[in-house]
Amino acid sequence: MTKVAIVGANGYSGEELCAILGRHPRVKVTAVTSRQHAGKRVSDALARLAGSSGIGSLEFVEPAVENLLESEAEFFFLALPHGLAAEFAAPLIAAGKKVVDLSADFRLRDPAVFREYYGHEHGAPHLLAEAVFGIPEIHREEIARASLVASAGCYPTSILLPLVPLLKAGAIKSSSIIVSSASGVSGAGRKPETPLLFAECHESLRAYGIPKHRHLSEIEQELSWAANDRVTITFVPHLAPMNRGIHTTIFAAPEDDVDAALIMACWKATYESEAFVRMPDSLPDVKNVNYTNFCDIGVCHDSRTGRLIILSALDNLVKGAAGQAVQNFNLMAGFPEAEGLL
Amino acid sequence: MTKVAIVGANGYSGEELCAILGRHPRVKVTAVTSRQHAGKRVSDALARLAGSSGIGSLEFVEPAVENLLESEAEFFFLALPHGLAAEFAAPLIAAGKKVVDLSADFRLRDPAVFREYYGHEHGAPHLLAEAVFGIPEIHREEIARASLVASAGCYPTSILLPLVPLLKAGAIKSSSIIVSSASGVSGAGRKPETPLLFAECHESLRAYGIPKHRHLSEIEQELSWAANDRVTITFVPHLAPMNRGIHTTIFAAPEDDVDAALIMACWKATYESEAFVRMPDSLPDVKNVNYTNFCDIGVCHDSRTGRLIILSALDNLVKGAAGQAVQNFNLMAGFPEAEGLL
Amino acid sequence: MTKVAIVGANGYSGEELCAILGRHPRVKVTAVTSRQHAGKRVSDALARLAGSSGIGSLEFVEPAVENLLESEAEFFFLALPHGLAAEFAAPLIAAGKKVVDLSADFRLRDPAVFREYYGHEHGAPHLLAEAVFGIPEIHREEIARASLVASAGCYPTSILLPLVPLLKAGAIKSSSIIVSSASGVSGAGRKPETPLLFAECHESLRAYGIPKHRHLSEIEQELSWAANDRVTITFVPHLAPMNRGIHTTIFAAPEDDVDAALIMACWKATYESEAFVRMPDSLPDVKNVNYTNFCDIGVCHDSRTGRLIILSALDNLVKGAAGQAVQNFNLMAGFPEAEGLL
Amino acid sequence: MTKVAIVGANGYSGEELCAILGRHPRVKVTAVTSRQHAGKRVSDALARLAGSSGIGSLEFVEPAVENLLESEAEFFFLALPHGLAAEFAAPLIAAGKKVVDLSADFRLRDPAVFREYYGHEHGAPHLLAEAVFGIPEIHREEIARASLVASAGCYPTSILLPLVPLLKAGAIKSSSIIVSSASGVSGAGRKPETPLLFAECHESLRAYGIPKHRHLSEIEQELSWAANDRVTITFVPHLAPMNRGIHTTIFAAPEDDVDAALIMACWKATYESEAFVRMPDSLPDVKNVNYTNFCDIGVCHDSRTGRLIILSALDNLVKGAAGQAVQNFNLMAGFPEAEGLL
Repeated sequence: MTKVAIVGANGYSGEELCAILGRHPRVKVTAVTSRQHAGKRVSDALARLAGSSGIGSLEFVEPAVENLLESEAEFFFLALPHGLAAEFAAPLIAAGKKVVDLSADFRLRDPAVFREYYGHEHGAPHLLAEAVFGIPEIHREEIARASLVASAGCYPTSILLPLVPLLKAGAIKSSSIIVSSASGVSGAGRKPETPLLFAECHESLRAYGIPKHRHLSEIEQELSWAANDRVTITFVPHLAPMNRGIHTTIFAAPEDDVDAALIMACWKATYESEAFVRMPDSLPDVKNVNYTNFCDIGVCHDSRTGRLIILSALDNLVKGAAGQAVQNFNLMAGFPEAEGLL
Repeated sequence: MTKVAIVGANGYSGEELCAILGRHPRVKVTAVTSRQHAGKRVSDALARLAGSSGIGSLEFVEPAVENLLESEAEFFFLALPHGLAAEFAAPLIAAGKKVVDLSADFRLRDPAVFREYYGHEHGAPHLLAEAVFGIPEIHREEIARASLVASAGCYPTSILLPLVPLLKAGAIKSSSIIVSSASGVSGAGRKPETPLLFAECHESLRAYGIPKHRHLSEIEQELSWAANDRVTITFVPHLAPMNRGIHTTIFAAPEDDVDAALIMACWKATYESEAFVRMPDSLPDVKNVNYTNFCDIGVCHDSRTGRLIILSALDNLVKGAAGQAVQNFNLMAGFPEAEGLL
Repeated sequence: MTKVAIVGANGYSGEELCAILGRHPRVKVTAVTSRQHAGKRVSDALARLAGSSGIGSLEFVEPAVENLLESEAEFFFLALPHGLAAEFAAPLIAAGKKVVDLSADFRLRDPAVFREYYGHEHGAPHLLAEAVFGIPEIHREEIARASLVASAGCYPTSILLPLVPLLKAGAIKSSSIIVSSASGVSGAGRKPETPLLFAECHESLRAYGIPKHRHLSEIEQELSWAANDRVTITFVPHLAPMNRGIHTTIFAAPEDDVDAALIMACWKATYESEAFVRMPDSLPDVKNVNYTNFCDIGVCHDSRTGRLIILSALDNLVKGAAGQAVQNFNLMAGFPEAEGLL
Repeated sequence: MTKVAIVGANGYSGEELCAILGRHPRVKVTAVTSRQHAGKRVSDALARLAGSSGIGSLEFVEPAVENLLESEAEFFFLALPHGLAAEFAAPLIAAGKKVVDLSADFRLRDPAVFREYYGHEHGAPHLLAEAVFGIPEIHREEIARASLVASAGCYPTSILLPLVPLLKAGAIKSSSIIVSSASGVSGAGRKPETPLLFAECHESLRAYGIPKHRHLSEIEQELSWAANDRVTITFVPHLAPMNRGIHTTIFAAPEDDVDAALIMACWKATYESEAFVRMPDSLPDVKNVNYTNFCDIGVCHDSRTGRLIILSALDNLVKGAAGQAVQNFNLMAGFPEAEGLL
């Protein structure tokens, strides 16, 4: 059994990590941290986790590096706010540990872009070069060799999984990409803020964070990498009245002679042996991916305008956060990639 | 008191019409029809309507033209399925009555386009020339003079209110328009079909009807009229887990030197004295328009890509159906346009 | 036009008061207060209220008695937290103004009971004798004569409207009353607290506040008054995943020979000419009363056990708060009781 | 690997069975039936199941006994409507197969009670004597030896798990039991009926099926067995706007000197080593049990009235249907009881 620790287990991603790792057949969770709940049993703070594995009977400890090193864990999952993750990653990496970071701290290769989008200097810029962007379907080999993986976020995963193969294949015009996404409210985190109250979100649907949502930075970094050219896109996220799920609708102009069949062929060639990317006959729907690590993708050609309509759906807490983190971990640990995730 | 009849009162739009017209200070509802509920008191079939006005104690009659003519109503609201509305409108118009049709039957000027989108011949093509497309903010004067108004649908209203003034002013490139909309489930009607079940729509979000949703026909007709040129757009509707509300996100390329401030100035010039178009400081949210006849619109310029992001929200059953129908009726009847709607 | 002020307009009840009073044909709102939003236009803080009446263009003022007296209002609606309302009511009453209080501060006649349930001394005990408990269907005449009305809360109204006539008539055994209620989340107020977040309430249903919810104090006071005897009940409130609505299920043992028909006859005799109490053929459902001032009640006799099952539904923000407050105000002002509420 | 078949896989319980059995480490699903989808791949009809195991690539067959016998399955899960299950169980049992029935067909020992509640004669009365009522925590040993287990329903499980130990221990007065439950809409099945539409259930809460819901028959049978006396209760189910989850609130009078601590002690003694019954510190909430096989129970003593308030929560599709069925199957097959369920 590989020993792991979960740092910041009280948010929605952290709780989902507890649930997944608690069921993982090759993992023993040896420490979970929560500033707010330190000293409490996990199951007293997060009643859902009681009884489902040893994890419910663990006690939260303060998120201090000393506590973490004492836990004898080899792998550390960081489910912390942006900025804070770097403070933990640096000493853990220095101590020879392996880190899967669910925050945005190590997703960007360029510290100037980090500063532009996050408004402060990066806390551990020396680690940016070795950090690997954590979508296994895109960077599997680097992830397997990495000590620090920056597990990708929910919106980026829903956008990159369908688009990266198409840009690599030169199937779409990169300057034409427009993305409209909708996210369940858990994507905003467990923060006691008025706009996230039930009565503010139910029977509500609204755009937010336009025109420059923070996730654009990592989306464009990876799209540019795939296109081997600078890619800039328009991205409009929306908050939808559901607990979980990201639905993404992408508009793009195809290169000459590219149609829906070619798009589908490109995806099939890329994802045929992937466990977690599906191409259903029906249009993607978050209800089919929620509580799973799948990302469903689909395409429709609008022959009237010549544009492609590309659709995807995933669970923001699983394939968009905790599930993907465990998928990255499985690669780093040399386990079957889908272990604990099907 | 002006006598009116509601034909097809059992659907969601019909029920909302009952609620609005039941409160209208200048209206007496003299007949309501429902094939399914003929012979029942309205309040026995639609418990929400009991006690709120005389309407709850009316009895549903069969939807037959004879019954309608006997009702002594001067105005007839048709809340019927596509195709059936034409069968009622023709004899009512022939009898000198005035008709507000909430279906799509009279929204298209060209019967060939009707056939293309609805799959059958139009039932009363001779009336197409006199029917007026019913968005008061766009066709007020023709509506006021019309005998037959084709009240516009929910998606079209959410798209046309922001775009028509911009196309008239030449502010955006008409070939660049892309629309992503999300609708509450009541927009699909009160039809006992599996995909509309609660457990199929809750914690679900999905696109549907792509790439050629029926409403495209009326949207493009009106956009082309505004642009004085043939306009073709990409339109992706989504089903969102809420009862009411349409949220629309439009992407468009501005003409040279057009920015968000100019868009806003164009809207203010157009809508300054309108009762039902608002330009809030915050981004449009269906929760602010539900149960009202307002349409909220907003704009954001994405300077990174040069595109405009245009947003709108309305209640699909009010400004997108019954409220707009009453607004049209008020014009036709010579009443203050907002009577019964604020 | 009667001038009124709304004190504490930023909560859900306050916002609903703004919406209802903004439409009221005999009312001019001259002041709205909000500590948080003082200096802002109402429509900037509460976008839903823009354009619907003059109210959106008012500016929030600090909730200070001086500001209120300057407003020239004759009536003051207090939508403040418990405890704070008494601080405002005392000087307003002393200045000869009339007050409709939506808080619990003046609902209890006995300051000892207030202390028991609210944990502190009452702030204006000298006013308790003149305050009238504000359910018009129960205390209409006293309300019409009162200067200070303590508008009843949402749970109490849903319980008292069905039970008071039955206890007065001696139709049920008062010691047998058990109540299970479910409330929409807006009932908990616009408070940024983790348990009220969307993702904590959606796909959730839970009891809370047992066994001694604060509202028990006013419920039992009024039941005891109706029974002319001390009545103690069991009450379990639940939080249900909806914005609005209270659904109440009451279990009670009938007195000898009392059956459902007798219960219904008792209600019909009591409520026949009431505008806002309905006895639908179908079972009460919050969807039929939401956004209205109606309370629907119904009864079923369980012949297997001899118990009565009594059901009610109302909108917690309308008949359970703002609508009832306006109904009380209409009585106090000598207006038709339903003015602005149908 | 034990071969199993799922008969009636297109309903919500059947789909959940597919999901659970598809992950079960000791099971191979060799047939799934659906009248509606016969000939289709499972994943084409139920997109959620694609890729998660071999099950998605199976093809639905017609639900005919011949097809089932050909499948070489040893165990058959029947997720069929009431009445139809008996038609399949009889020949399967006759052929020496083992059956886990999720319908109500074999839950009642007395065919007269079946006729009273279901309105027709039982289809296989000769099997009633050998069928075992399927709640493992209550009838574990009989289940382990049985060929035909009638897996208990969702409401009954939520009521029996807390009450059976208390009645056995003589801790509560059996004549005092009153139950108010709320269920998510999936509990009503995947039936295209108007009252189950999204727009009829969202922002809705209503009682139904009173005073004599069909599940009363099995609830009272088991309560009477536990009390060793005839028990009759009042039961009010409600439909709540959520996909999944049952929340049950029970009122009961304790026997002398019984308080909440004694209730809790009784449960702890009974359930201490149970995997799936939890007694959380906080009040039960469906969000903590959804997507799990747990049933959470809790108690509160209302000292003001002397009554006990007993609460429970479970997922109607898991512990209330498919999960419990698999738990029963594990016992029948000699597997660890929690296999595939944690």
